[in-house]
Amino acid sequence: MVNIAILGFGTVGSGVAEVMEENAVSISHNAAEDIRVKYIVDIRDFPDSPFADKLIRDFETVVSDPDVQVVVETIGGRKAAYEYTKRALEAGKSVVTSNKELVASRGHELLEIAKRKNVNYLFEASVGGGIPIIRPITQCLTANEIDEIYGILNGTTNYILTRMITDGAPFGEILKDAQKQGYAEADPTADIEGYDAARKICILADLCFGQSVDPESIGVEGISGVTLEDIEYARRLGYKIKLLGRARRLPGGHIAAYVAPHLISKTSLLSNVDGVMNGIVVHGNALGECMFYGAGAGKRPTASAVVADIIDAVKHRRARKYLGWEESGPGYVVDTDDVSSRWFLRTGSGLDVIGRAFGNVRLISYPGEYPGAGPDEYAFATPEMTGRELAARTGEMEVRSRFRIL
Amino acid sequence: MVNIAILGFGTVGSGVAEVMEENAVSISHNAAEDIRVKYIVDIRDFPDSPFADKLIRDFETVVSDPDVQVVVETIGGRKAAYEYTKRALEAGKSVVTSNKELVASRGHELLEIAKRKNVNYLFEASVGGGIPIIRPITQCLTANEIDEIYGILNGTTNYILTRMITDGAPFGEILKDAQKQGYAEADPTADIEGYDAARKICILADLCFGQSVDPESIGVEGISGVTLEDIEYARRLGYKIKLLGRARRLPGGHIAAYVAPHLISKTSLLSNVDGVMNGIVVHGNALGECMFYGAGAGKRPTASAVVADIIDAVKHRRARKYLGWEESGPGYVVDTDDVSSRWFLRTGSGLDVIGRAFGNVRLISYPGEYPGAGPDEYAFATPEMTGRELAARTGEMEVRSRFRIL
Repeated sequence: MVNIAILGFGTVGSGVAEVMEENAVSISHNAAEDIRVKYIVDIRDFPDSPFADKLIRDFETVVSDPDVQVVVETIGGRKAAYEYTKRALEAGKSVVTSNKELVASRGHELLEIAKRKNVNYLFEASVGGGIPIIRPITQCLTANEIDEIYGILNGTTNYILTRMITDGAPFGEILKDAQKQGYAEADPTADIEGYDAARKICILADLCFGQSVDPESIGVEGISGVTLEDIEYARRLGYKIKLLGRARRLPGGHIAAYVAPHLISKTSLLSNVDGVMNGIVVHGNALGECMFYGAGAGKRPTASAVVADIIDAVKHRRARKYLGWEESGPGYVVDTDDVSSRWFLRTGSGLDVIGRAFGNVRLISYPGEYPGAGPDEYAFATPEMTGRELAARTGEMEVRSRFRIL
Repeated sequence: MVNIAILGFGTVGSGVAEVMEENAVSISHNAAEDIRVKYIVDIRDFPDSPFADKLIRDFETVVSDPDVQVVVETIGGRKAAYEYTKRALEAGKSVVTSNKELVASRGHELLEIAKRKNVNYLFEASVGGGIPIIRPITQCLTANEIDEIYGILNGTTNYILTRMITDGAPFGEILKDAQKQGYAEADPTADIEGYDAARKICILADLCFGQSVDPESIGVEGISGVTLEDIEYARRLGYKIKLLGRARRLPGGHIAAYVAPHLISKTSLLSNVDGVMNGIVVHGNALGECMFYGAGAGKRPTASAVVADIIDAVKHRRARKYLGWEESGPGYVVDTDDVSSRWFLRTGSGLDVIGRAFGNVRLISYPGEYPGAGPDEYAFATPEMTGRELAARTGEMEVRSRFRIL
């Protein structure tokens, strides 16, 4: 019998308690041991919860109870979550979490403590919700040099972009409706401005490339600037606009990592990942390309990943999993402005200005052709160049939109 | 330093040797140990191979060498592969394989030997080529009761069906071209008649549902009966025809497992898995649906999965992985004719016959409307019913095609 404690009885924490109870038989079978939720720690009261008898208010009870072997941190954020995780690990307990913010910012440090104490710090649920991705990268793709990883890492923004396409309604309107439906939070900043995706792509980059990438050090652009006109132009080109987190290996031991809306071809499988779903593409030098798809958030999908980690922690109580990465030095992550791609540009400048900047380009749409566009508007795709070069070339231009093309 | 031996220097075996050499540094890092290919066993000569110095002809050298700790079986088939695998396991060596035929037919027995000898028998490459699927099921979805698993499990048939759609050319013609291009074997029976997919869905069913399913006991239908007319009707309905392996949990502890061409909706992600690619969908009661996508065959993708297993076997030399399933009793797998689905039917019978058999159905296409169809042809989708019921209802009908709808 292994006892666990859940910290935080919010969406994910309550989902973990429910799944643990509902699938108790198969979970015990898979762990080759019975697992019991001994405590659930929350400062709030839940008198009507079926788990009311397990609810306590004080983390000290958990950390000082030698019977508790695995601690599940579903508090979120970087304050109490950080302190409790550190103390639980120091006390020789394995910790399992869905907290991408904490893993992205303090993962290296917490994994070092786990290593020193010979326990596990596991975070499958921190990226892609219920989609298996951390373990596939660290255990299934180990024969590969991973060149690149990218994907749709945030369900809220993907839901909004998908509905902008299907409903033909502008960003602000769809966002409001998404908030009503529970697909976007009251304060949607972390999602729509790309910060959530940034944390996730940094965790993936940490694992794929072996050195830590600070989410605060990478270029992050959200979707609030994506207009219906952009979506219509993309459609005409055979593309959809999706918010991607992207990380890739560059020559000289450097990597690129950033979050930005991209035009992606409708012929790619990833462009068909719609609504709240997530899709993550990994490219390895032996495997080629593979993709992982599923629910990137939500109570039960996230609980599915957390509980898998609990089972793993129980099975590996006396054997630490091989997870971790090194600290990175300055210059490891190149400036996002120095990363090349093809670009989609929409401009109000005339043909003479476009010609001087880019030479002969194939215009996608002509002034006045698309009703939503201004009567004086041109759009086109550039050859591959860095953001810096693009900025230099468009110095004289009135740029209305500028997106990378995958 | 861990020494391994590769049995069979064909496509997969030589891919394994190449990837082991090419990615030696990262592989050693991931395994936390150096891994060396000590022997490659093949009865053929390869004097010009860069691995010529490792090539030997006799398995006895391998089995009697106490320095060899992991044996890689890439011979294929059920004869020598079976004997060598058994002897290697009995000798206390872990075995890694891509041999779906052997795992599907003898997996239970070989896993039992591995368990008894406290070594590992690993077969990630046996399903989905390089796509991580075995390990995700056994380690990442452990919190779930898995309800259903299905997918495009054979690249050759998916390539042929995709090209029938894009080229508008009939099965026989595309098959010949696929053989020329190396996408289909000289004797394509195992692929096009569905036997290869059957082995794979049985391995997946073994793992997901815990009891062995014999590929020879399940309903298997290939793609040689799929015509251009069927594909055109499917297109009009908003579907594509794909060969699926499918297994699902039924009430009363039974399961359904079979291989058959299905009509699948173009709005599903799986319908966009085209060409030689594979896609596998898993449905769990906590996670909901997730999908794994990638190259289901080929030298390097398959080697990617085999080498990941080698690394795993090296890391778990003294700790067996939890893989295995029970023998099943009679009646565990229900007769495929008793499994329900909606059906697509194409018939040369008149409206009176159709009406008597199915009542009011919405006809998809009317006689003579589609140039490829006969002038007297109707097609429609039925409500959900078993294959047995369908056969009874169509007793009087001239049935030209009959496919399940996913």
